[in-house]
Amino acid sequence: MPGTDTRLEPLQVLPDSECVLLLRANDLGRIGLVDRDARPLIFPVNYFFEDGVIAFRTSPGSKLELAPGAEVCFEVDGWDEETRIGWSVLVKGVAHDITHPRGMPTGRMHFLPVHPRAPGRREHWIGIWTREISGRRFRSGPAAGR
Amino acid sequence: MPGTDTRLEPLQVLPDSECVLLLRANDLGRIGLVDRDARPLIFPVNYFFEDGVIAFRTSPGSKLELAPGAEVCFEVDGWDEETRIGWSVLVKGVAHDITHPRGMPTGRMHFLPVHPRAPGRREHWIGIWTREISGRRFRSGPAAGR
Repeated sequence: MPGTDTRLEPLQVLPDSECVLLLRANDLGRIGLVDRDARPLIFPVNYFFEDGVIAFRTSPGSKLELAPGAEVCFEVDGWDEETRIGWSVLVKGVAHDITHPRGMPTGRMHFLPVHPRAPGRREHWIGIWTREISGRRFRSGPAAGR
Repeated sequence: MPGTDTRLEPLQVLPDSECVLLLRANDLGRIGLVDRDARPLIFPVNYFFEDGVIAFRTSPGSKLELAPGAEVCFEVDGWDEETRIGWSVLVKGVAHDITHPRGMPTGRMHFLPVHPRAPGRREHWIGIWTREISGRRFRSGPAAGR
């Protein structure tokens, strides 16, 4: 097909190292949880990724009730309309409440530069310990896209 | 605080009508599922929203194994760096396989303009019947943001 670069694989499975770079380069992702009725929930959060831990701040509510001690997932994705290249990364792991009794994260998490964009006080910190990470990049050619 | 517009509420709960407009105006969202081990999963999909149904195409895999007949959720969000206004919409409902035996969606879904950006054959259609919809818009002022 003229103009279509066939050298780039249409769908690439990303190595862990690249998934980690993508997690580091972004700060808006989505946590996936299971509620008391075994139904899935998704919440967007601003996060910071360091040493295999995804950390974010939150206030009392569903995330704080459901996440600590639970198996959760975390998703980040992106799409470039010009290049028509998209990607997504999915992390699976266990979440823990990492709030220090005085409203600060434990240990070196103390220094994490997490800045929630949504307003309101967020005195609790949740960390997701990465157990599995997977990602893919895909390219949609003009013909395939529309 | 100088330069901060306090007239706009920092966090607005969106009426259903506005959530519907946002679902219509976008085409990339994320389905939330629960796997066989009761763990959450998130997958980005290109979708189309019409008559209360979120429809997307998929190929054999986790989504097709887990979604039909299950309680799922669907999330769409956006963030404008310039205005510092973000929003998110969460839909809860039951998913159904709406693939006609001949690889087409049933009824008028036939005509849905869903164009998955990721390559590969996607001969199955899944529809999520909206039962609950919720959304919010938030504004992050310069001081609150960083």
